[in-house]
Amino acid sequence: MEVLRQLHERKSVRVYEDRPVEQDVKRQILEAAIQAPSAGNMALYTILDITDPDMKAALAKSCDDQPFIATAPMVLIFCADYRRWFEVFRKVAEDTRAPDMGDLFLAQADALIAAQNAVVAAHGLGLGSCYIGDITERFEYHKELLGLPRYVVPAAMLCFGYPTAQQLRREKPPRFRVEDMVHENGYDLKKSDAMEDMLAERSGKSGEELQDWLRRFCGRKWDSAFSREMSRSCTAMVEAWCGKEIL
Amino acid sequence: MEVLRQLHERKSVRVYEDRPVEQDVKRQILEAAIQAPSAGNMALYTILDITDPDMKAALAKSCDDQPFIATAPMVLIFCADYRRWFEVFRKVAEDTRAPDMGDLFLAQADALIAAQNAVVAAHGLGLGSCYIGDITERFEYHKELLGLPRYVVPAAMLCFGYPTAQQLRREKPPRFRVEDMVHENGYDLKKSDAMEDMLAERSGKSGEELQDWLRRFCGRKWDSAFSREMSRSCTAMVEAWCGKEIL
Repeated sequence: MEVLRQLHERKSVRVYEDRPVEQDVKRQILEAAIQAPSAGNMALYTILDITDPDMKAALAKSCDDQPFIATAPMVLIFCADYRRWFEVFRKVAEDTRAPDMGDLFLAQADALIAAQNAVVAAHGLGLGSCYIGDITERFEYHKELLGLPRYVVPAAMLCFGYPTAQQLRREKPPRFRVEDMVHENGYDLKKSDAMEDMLAERSGKSGEELQDWLRRFCGRKWDSAFSREMSRSCTAMVEAWCGKEIL
Repeated sequence: MEVLRQLHERKSVRVYEDRPVEQDVKRQILEAAIQAPSAGNMALYTILDITDPDMKAALAKSCDDQPFIATAPMVLIFCADYRRWFEVFRKVAEDTRAPDMGDLFLAQADALIAAQNAVVAAHGLGLGSCYIGDITERFEYHKELLGLPRYVVPAAMLCFGYPTAQQLRREKPPRFRVEDMVHENGYDLKKSDAMEDMLAERSGKSGEELQDWLRRFCGRKWDSAFSREMSRSCTAMVEAWCGKEIL
């Protein structure tokens, strides 16, 4: 089945051919993205299409210094957006409540679901893509850079481009097994506790080699500056969204 | 293009034929879900496969009283899950930091991206699906019902089943236009402020008819008990996740 095959095949691609993404191809990706399901068909998100090279360069710097962002042929930022609806709601219902935590999570979900549609569509059109989670860092800076008003916050950034031949050949990193990722009728602590076995199975490493890898991975992904910054930044984002005074 | 066509075609389906989802079909959906991209290939989520009729019935009640959940042939709950990794990290790095806000948003993103892969795969296999955002309500109850430990929280619930003939014929509710959903190089306040025009364009309503619809929609989706509960519940979820003491 074509669609299943493509979902299996798709892997993150960070190295692109020096070739622009055609306008009609971009259009098809955006059209597919906005066809995604959304809560109450409210489409609680806005897609920022970053075409300005200076803005791409700034994002490459602010998003953990990843130069490939600056030269990526297509860069989209999916923002959770409740501003659009809230401005309409407060007109028909004066003194109504302000957007709050539930609305933030709902809008984040809408944005991410649409983003994944874009990823799937892009792969179908021969494009590689890569999520950049670092867009949720440095909230204040990105808010200013992207001109985000209140109740609009970044959920995910995506880079797109035609993969190089080397990227096409590169093997997709293996996933965990369905047996380990899926629990029946509630959370299975025993499965969760078997994480080291899952990692051993997936990586082929064991014993001291696995422990070494784990220590390094932990240092890179957990005990790391970017990951502390992400939490600081997301906390600032939540506070800005949920603050009591309506501006 | 097959994939694009399917992304356009897919709509939410809440009425299913009385026919189980075959085990191999479920398996293919789960396999496609876990092939989704995730931050650092960490797969920060767990999928709960709800097969127990009593548990489905309980969820139908707790998720805004939607009886179709109780009889849906397949019910999956995608949970953000940092427990699995955190338990490993704290073994290799004693006294390390606790999961925090950034980790919550990252894991939520992983869960939602995988959920949308499941939706796309299911559609390709002839199944209808429907997101149930209400799983983020009643945090304490769902945590208990699903046996969720700390650092595991619901991100999205999905119901699946073969659509009835009537559902297959039903038109997909129209989306907004790409021109309105996509802003170039930063947030465009003017586009955002044109929300009433977007709604008029999409619904074919205008003037008093549109205002009436808006007032009713606002009452249903915004000034509503479920939406206040979602914010209360998500706040409790955030507090439980980000609380300072590590259990």
